[in-house]
Amino acid sequence: MSFTPPQPNDASTSKQRLDASKLKFTQSTFLHPVPEPGSPELWAQNVHTDHMVTCRWTAEKGWDAPEIKPFADFSISPLASCIHYATQCFEGMKAYRGVDNKVRLFRPDRNAKRLVMSAKRVSLPEFDDAELVKLIKALVRTDSKRWLAEPGSFRYVRPALIGTGRQLGVQIPREAVLFIVMVCWPDFSTETPPGVSPRSDLRLLTSRNDTIRAWPGGFGYAKVGANYGPSFASHCAAQESGYDQILWLFGNDGQVTEAGASNFFAIVKDEHASKLQLLTAPLDDKVILDGVTRRSVLELVETRLADELEARETKFTISDLEKAWKEGRLVEAFVSGTAFFIKDVSTIRVGDHNLDLAQKQDNAAKFGPRIKGWLKDIMFGVEEHKWGVIV
Amino acid sequence: MSFTPPQPNDASTSKQRLDASKLKFTQSTFLHPVPEPGSPELWAQNVHTDHMVTCRWTAEKGWDAPEIKPFADFSISPLASCIHYATQCFEGMKAYRGVDNKVRLFRPDRNAKRLVMSAKRVSLPEFDDAELVKLIKALVRTDSKRWLAEPGSFRYVRPALIGTGRQLGVQIPREAVLFIVMVCWPDFSTETPPGVSPRSDLRLLTSRNDTIRAWPGGFGYAKVGANYGPSFASHCAAQESGYDQILWLFGNDGQVTEAGASNFFAIVKDEHASKLQLLTAPLDDKVILDGVTRRSVLELVETRLADELEARETKFTISDLEKAWKEGRLVEAFVSGTAFFIKDVSTIRVGDHNLDLAQKQDNAAKFGPRIKGWLKDIMFGVEEHKWGVIV
Repeated sequence: MSFTPPQPNDASTSKQRLDASKLKFTQSTFLHPVPEPGSPELWAQNVHTDHMVTCRWTAEKGWDAPEIKPFADFSISPLASCIHYATQCFEGMKAYRGVDNKVRLFRPDRNAKRLVMSAKRVSLPEFDDAELVKLIKALVRTDSKRWLAEPGSFRYVRPALIGTGRQLGVQIPREAVLFIVMVCWPDFSTETPPGVSPRSDLRLLTSRNDTIRAWPGGFGYAKVGANYGPSFASHCAAQESGYDQILWLFGNDGQVTEAGASNFFAIVKDEHASKLQLLTAPLDDKVILDGVTRRSVLELVETRLADELEARETKFTISDLEKAWKEGRLVEAFVSGTAFFIKDVSTIRVGDHNLDLAQKQDNAAKFGPRIKGWLKDIMFGVEEHKWGVIV
Repeated sequence: MSFTPPQPNDASTSKQRLDASKLKFTQSTFLHPVPEPGSPELWAQNVHTDHMVTCRWTAEKGWDAPEIKPFADFSISPLASCIHYATQCFEGMKAYRGVDNKVRLFRPDRNAKRLVMSAKRVSLPEFDDAELVKLIKALVRTDSKRWLAEPGSFRYVRPALIGTGRQLGVQIPREAVLFIVMVCWPDFSTETPPGVSPRSDLRLLTSRNDTIRAWPGGFGYAKVGANYGPSFASHCAAQESGYDQILWLFGNDGQVTEAGASNFFAIVKDEHASKLQLLTAPLDDKVILDGVTRRSVLELVETRLADELEARETKFTISDLEKAWKEGRLVEAFVSGTAFFIKDVSTIRVGDHNLDLAQKQDNAAKFGPRIKGWLKDIMFGVEEHKWGVIV
């Protein structure tokens, strides 16, 4: 790590670094009941496992020794930075029980590096991303016996960093807490919530001109709380209108950026190209998240589908999509992310009409499901791959 | 209030409304020491008074009875929406002990209305703003005897609303807590922190092209946490370079928007106008905060300075300011806000050079100090005015 001069939150050598080898362990005396597979309470996304990791940081001393301890509420001052000024960032990842009974994480190094980057964007302290991966593994190891018992099952892991300093001034937090929790999560990619009629497709509603998720020079590329709360109203309005997610457009020309909190992909035929084009928004403007699943999709297309598909990280607009759709050249669309995994898009609502995507019955003929299958095989150990990191 | 159909957080009649008349009171048994006037600990902006107001809301029941109780930490779930998704908003205002020994708030109705608006932007529940004003008054009444003893003194009041529902999904919070705390605050408009050489001016650094505070379609107009944390890094970098605040520019043409967390005003001579022009950014694009002090400055200029000054809420760019400065037409600049009150700008850093504003020794000749004087008289009861609301 290069030394940058008077960065107050810099992990300079005089302060203690985040060090997973100092981990302290306190066994929970109360074991929470584990929900049945597929049970409705998974949809609440708030059933947590028995333990959590916490680690406190102060500007004076740096990082304390991390702890694994019974899951419990935090004591947070009404003056804490994180509840007034959104000094908070997080990661989302999953732990998988493989067909070989081994527990894996999917590319945890990328999530850990991104949390370091996000922390910087909201002036939270730096840490060594490799230590975070060790702490994530430690929590998963602790709780996987009861909570990840079934081969083929998964749980959601949420590392987060919050500014806990009691500071109402416009100031960089002088105290912070890094924590990791594990919760039960439904399978969004194949199931629907209780009371919602089962369908496996995804209906997107394009964002209105007066609502923009992120902007160049802002923080759309970082996984910070500030990107989420302000988008809930649009998300909720979309759901009330019968859609699942907002397709976020940007700029007067309606550039396609993200879908909800997922990355978006479209596959189009281009008369000037010999192969089908897989389009997804580029990272350069820093308005979209550098998704781990997004990156993995692009890499798999390059290594396994190069004969059929050309992956292009490029600006494209909703008019481009509409034109392709009208001309019968919009072949497929899907979203990718940890929460939704990979999910087929069936409809995109643009103004007062729908772009309906033909639903082929044969999943093997579609790229989204094929890529999803490969990723699933890696996550659950059907295929041994460096991305599937054994815990 | 008009009824909007299935808005989950709508304060519909079947649910309990926020009701200050139900206020429950628990006296603190421990009274915290009150810092001396001007003492260094005021600069920490975290010395709180003895009590706080809290009020819980749930999607099922609406608002519980509010409480005044001893100041204490919150118990917040590691899964709470507010620490992951920035479902949080706040207000900043002050309570003043007048020369007549009465305690006043300054236009609290405007802060309360703005909190309702901010809450909506981050999908937090609605409430009756008049009830919030009653709760603020109740807290100030409770703690003003010990904490606002001296005529001419003030404290900072922070109402806030946070989403406490345990929800890691992208969902509107189903639980929230409204709270109000009062803390000691330094007089930024006349003092400097311990160790900083005393000066009453303000040095602004224009924001870089790659960092913007807010954008049209975003939430710059709302007092939500999401506007603050992501701006700390720029703020800190400005301070390290010897400046006090960022002057936030927007767009390719460098529109002048806000200074730090304050509104910005410039007074320029315009050859085509008979009067001096008071320029400040307009509210239409919704990128700046509709500041209570900003609004009051504009209203005072209209009612008391109409012969000398023409107030214009209009787009203007840093190039406009620079041109005016070069031609000797940039007469004065100041910022306004609750935290900084009204403060003269002495320098604006643009690229590699400074726009230095002539520092007249005679404050009576300057508009900023004159307006500040009027506001101060209202706040401290020297002038009886409807804006000074007796608690």
